[in-house]
Amino acid sequence: MKEIRVADHMKFVKKSAIRQLVDSAPADAINLGLGEIQFPLPEFLKQKAAEIINFKNIGYSTNAGLIELRKAICDYYQCEFNDNVCITAGAEEALFAALFSYINKGDEVLIANPTFLAYKTIVEMLGAKVSSFSLDPQNEFALNENSLRIAITDKTKAMILCNPSNPLGIALNDHEIDLIIDICRKNKILIIVDEVYRELFLDERSRSFLDTDLDTIIISSLSKSHCMSGWRIGWAISQKSELIAPIIKTHQYICTCAPVISQFLALEALSIEGMQAKEEIRIKLAENRKFAIDYLSNANIEFLLNSSSPYLFVKVNGDDWKVAEALSKMGVIVIPGSAFGSNGKGFVRINYGIESDKLSKSIIILAKFQKEIIL
Amino acid sequence: MKEIRVADHMKFVKKSAIRQLVDSAPADAINLGLGEIQFPLPEFLKQKAAEIINFKNIGYSTNAGLIELRKAICDYYQCEFNDNVCITAGAEEALFAALFSYINKGDEVLIANPTFLAYKTIVEMLGAKVSSFSLDPQNEFALNENSLRIAITDKTKAMILCNPSNPLGIALNDHEIDLIIDICRKNKILIIVDEVYRELFLDERSRSFLDTDLDTIIISSLSKSHCMSGWRIGWAISQKSELIAPIIKTHQYICTCAPVISQFLALEALSIEGMQAKEEIRIKLAENRKFAIDYLSNANIEFLLNSSSPYLFVKVNGDDWKVAEALSKMGVIVIPGSAFGSNGKGFVRINYGIESDKLSKSIIILAKFQKEIIL
Repeated sequence: MKEIRVADHMKFVKKSAIRQLVDSAPADAINLGLGEIQFPLPEFLKQKAAEIINFKNIGYSTNAGLIELRKAICDYYQCEFNDNVCITAGAEEALFAALFSYINKGDEVLIANPTFLAYKTIVEMLGAKVSSFSLDPQNEFALNENSLRIAITDKTKAMILCNPSNPLGIALNDHEIDLIIDICRKNKILIIVDEVYRELFLDERSRSFLDTDLDTIIISSLSKSHCMSGWRIGWAISQKSELIAPIIKTHQYICTCAPVISQFLALEALSIEGMQAKEEIRIKLAENRKFAIDYLSNANIEFLLNSSSPYLFVKVNGDDWKVAEALSKMGVIVIPGSAFGSNGKGFVRINYGIESDKLSKSIIILAKFQKEIIL
Repeated sequence: MKEIRVADHMKFVKKSAIRQLVDSAPADAINLGLGEIQFPLPEFLKQKAAEIINFKNIGYSTNAGLIELRKAICDYYQCEFNDNVCITAGAEEALFAALFSYINKGDEVLIANPTFLAYKTIVEMLGAKVSSFSLDPQNEFALNENSLRIAITDKTKAMILCNPSNPLGIALNDHEIDLIIDICRKNKILIIVDEVYRELFLDERSRSFLDTDLDTIIISSLSKSHCMSGWRIGWAISQKSELIAPIIKTHQYICTCAPVISQFLALEALSIEGMQAKEEIRIKLAENRKFAIDYLSNANIEFLLNSSSPYLFVKVNGDDWKVAEALSKMGVIVIPGSAFGSNGKGFVRINYGIESDKLSKSIIILAKFQKEIIL
């Protein structure tokens, strides 16, 4: 007798071990484990949001999004607008829609080890298989070319990159970008690059794959750059409109259109004033980073020197899960590096995009713990 | 040599014939074809939105949504809160997430003929097959029990209902609801009911399937009831939390969480004042409807007497696609009934939820056309 059962692919959505970590922490724990910058919306955007509510008609937009916003996004990338953008409910939706549009059951998708957690799950939910290549912990997490070449089979359909990297906080260099594009083009592999951290650069903005490759799909959002996570605005863009057209179709059936109140605000975020407002966020992040790396350095704690906020990948003494569990009980939540892939073993990821008093308190606990306890 | 091709299931997303209809209309055409109420956001909600922007921290919410909002939705249904709600980016996302969570390739899904267009496409995008049952045009679109029984096979996994119906504007009666639940329960068919038009009732609110059946998943939103389409707030709810748990997981990977600015506003929409503000919309719709049905009746034009706004299913002389095309060129956009399924043949769907001057102008054109031209 058949029963109402979930779809078979749902078995790939595992219970989050990180959730358990968070649940075991005291209620007043400081959470350095989030994927969110804990700063308020810039004042300029607050004011603009109030104006939008009073003066704009906030109905449905076209599925792909407000044309002014799509054009503004093309302007941001300095590329020509030709229906090559789909505005989505955050970068997550852009990623889901892109993968849904291109991935068949049985395909293989390349992801880095380590990388952002969600990629693997979405790929598997779509009945495809993940094949991972190494960012080498012995070599400051540089791309291991050999491991990439080995990971490719005739079933490899796409690659998902996070650049700058969550959890590493570093971006690929020009050589690595060129190599990836070359290898993927020769093997007809669709490159999807999640660039949500690109605007949180420390010294200089990393190269966008959009500037380099016609066949890449770029995913980005305003969640990190403008502290607009709760507004759910992201996008998929490519130089080629034909790569985006199927994503627009999928997006239509996923959620009709991205929230239009947020689309109007996104237009302000990408204006000259909006981009200036974003700089305040970068400055605050740079201050927090300075505190964190100075303190950790003085305490002789090793970490990967990041080029993009807000993540520091910090070396720990012993098993990273056990360290994270112990820290959690002491009131500081961090994410074990191996949650992002086996190459993250021996590290924890911290997000310094929180109020500075909380940051200093938690970094002091972290350093003290590292000094005194070996797990 | 393999190429970068879209996923096989994308072939089921057809080009919209309705889009061509809209494109062929003059720029100043009056659009009675939309699925949106063209009224502004109620003043009360505008004020509350401004307050939210000033005083709330609009970051990510938990995947399932703000707990206060999930509780408020349970209060609305007068059911107990037990993690049995998932807040989504509109009803569309709730529907997509629900189907993604339950439907395997090869499954069959029951839909009504006629019904809302998107159901078929989503089912087919997921590799499943649609099997349709009749709402009988010879019998005021009542449920044809026999056709429902015939449509069921051992592969039938779910049924998607729209109640009150888009495009019909009528709700199932108690007998039909009981019959559907009985048949589906006996055949272990998951019932998913889209109730987005329920709050736009004319005389009395139709029964929610939630009140009747423990095993049904209800989908709804504030897009129609509160003119909040551009805010993208919908939900999936069931009496049983275990039916919603997989939807929350899928939703997490689709878009992390529903827009949080909109979640805060939804909380206001469901407050006593918010529900009063919604009444203004119902009253305006009832006025528009009175004009439309009086005018059509006086012109001896037949239509299905609706019990819910904003759709009137109007009988036309001749082929409904040709009528819609001709009307479109005359500056009035309507949707041919057969776009919703073969049983809609000979009708057009009009949405009277627009400004009254536009409505009167377009109804006059429609009536004149019907009187003078037979296609």
